[in-house]
Amino acid sequence: MTLSLLSLVCGCGPTAPEAHRVAAPPRTTVTVDDALVQFSLLASLAAGDYLDGPRLSELLAVGDFGIGTFHRLDGEMIVLDGHVYQASADGVIRQPSLDVTAPFAAVTFFDEDGRVENLAAHSLDLLDARINQSLPHRNLPYALRIDGEFSELTLRSVPAQNPPYEPLVDVVKQQVTWEHHNLRGTLVGLHCPGWIGNLNVTGYHWHFLSEDRQIGGHVLACQLKQGTLRYDACRSLVVRLPESDVFDRFDAQSIDQQDIDAIERQRERPSDSR
Amino acid sequence: MTLSLLSLVCGCGPTAPEAHRVAAPPRTTVTVDDALVQFSLLASLAAGDYLDGPRLSELLAVGDFGIGTFHRLDGEMIVLDGHVYQASADGVIRQPSLDVTAPFAAVTFFDEDGRVENLAAHSLDLLDARINQSLPHRNLPYALRIDGEFSELTLRSVPAQNPPYEPLVDVVKQQVTWEHHNLRGTLVGLHCPGWIGNLNVTGYHWHFLSEDRQIGGHVLACQLKQGTLRYDACRSLVVRLPESDVFDRFDAQSIDQQDIDAIERQRERPSDSR
Repeated sequence: MTLSLLSLVCGCGPTAPEAHRVAAPPRTTVTVDDALVQFSLLASLAAGDYLDGPRLSELLAVGDFGIGTFHRLDGEMIVLDGHVYQASADGVIRQPSLDVTAPFAAVTFFDEDGRVENLAAHSLDLLDARINQSLPHRNLPYALRIDGEFSELTLRSVPAQNPPYEPLVDVVKQQVTWEHHNLRGTLVGLHCPGWIGNLNVTGYHWHFLSEDRQIGGHVLACQLKQGTLRYDACRSLVVRLPESDVFDRFDAQSIDQQDIDAIERQRERPSDSR
Repeated sequence: MTLSLLSLVCGCGPTAPEAHRVAAPPRTTVTVDDALVQFSLLASLAAGDYLDGPRLSELLAVGDFGIGTFHRLDGEMIVLDGHVYQASADGVIRQPSLDVTAPFAAVTFFDEDGRVENLAAHSLDLLDARINQSLPHRNLPYALRIDGEFSELTLRSVPAQNPPYEPLVDVVKQQVTWEHHNLRGTLVGLHCPGWIGNLNVTGYHWHFLSEDRQIGGHVLACQLKQGTLRYDACRSLVVRLPESDVFDRFDAQSIDQQDIDAIERQRERPSDSR
């Protein structure tokens, strides 16, 4: 961006011929600070919109931390410290080409606003409840990072899909799950307030990546022995909408909260996510 | 932004002393094209969050077209061709100081993607239905502008509120309404897809400003004799979240779709807004 603006400035000198003048950035461009940037909607993904989306290079241009999935729903995405990891259903963690696309993802530039040391919890629900006590704002989205030691972890991933694409609530019936014990690594998560509706997952949504980058996936259960939570409150939400016929056709009313709970949690939904 | 980046580039030369170096823009800043930029959430406004928000100068920095309301809910906002108009409950249209704040607004840089000439409709619902046939994308937000001649128009505004602040569904019971006949002017509207939930108004939301800038308000009913629709599909949604205790406290679950229909429409909700 710096370069293109610089080109613009240099191209506007009095001697620059009209034909070679660099076009001004469209006046429809705005800058946004401290944003959670989301590509597509969970409701659209849940309805079966598993194709295309932005390239990973575009994702990394707007964030260095987050979660998502890949073209054809090929595994769970973990974005950590500016790297994208793909936890595939074969149990292997890859760093995919930045030309791979992501039909759904949410990322931010992780900018720590606060931390909690010596966090421990006997279950994922207890962990969520413990974090609820620490986050200062009820109605802001948060990026959450927990580096620590896990006594137990249940992870899942899903295999790449083929047409005709089933709704996500049916696809997760094909999920592969793994149980791990005594593992060091990082929980990469988001907390979205209740107002997010079906744009994303209300409440907590966790993916995991081990310290040795060999194990990862969507977190179904965990017991945290000891860890440090870092949180980043996001002051804006940016939703980039797909330019596809599939996205145009999806019916937001067809996806309900029970479906999203079934997809993302497979655990009882707390009566109040905060 | 151009200037600050230019300063950055110039300030980084080898002779620039450390103390005078211009700080880099935060790496948490992202640029977004073709966005509908929304300040706060309709659900929060509906719950009674009527205070503060961004200054109008901040609004105009991210759009030249849109709708909203003012500090203390003091009238209906129309943003047209880069000017902000305030349709107050006393029936007067003002151009307020750009230091005035807006607790809720949605704006975009209007960038015409298409138009429909010779539009006519005997009611607002028929107008909405007619536009449904013309908008190419079901699931994108649209900014909509109709310049024309109106045989009938029913407009409303609301007076500035005082504490304790009642929910919006109760405040609109104090609304002032006006009927006008044979008036030239502009409908300034948004269409939000069903997935928007309670972030904004699902379906159509219209404000009006007369050609002579003397009459305006939120549109409750209209008969369009003849007009031209221009539409602008927005490829991104940006939601800027308030930094206030009131916003932190609001409960998204407390606002339901019936309330929003009662607030914004006072007409039967179509079974499918598109």
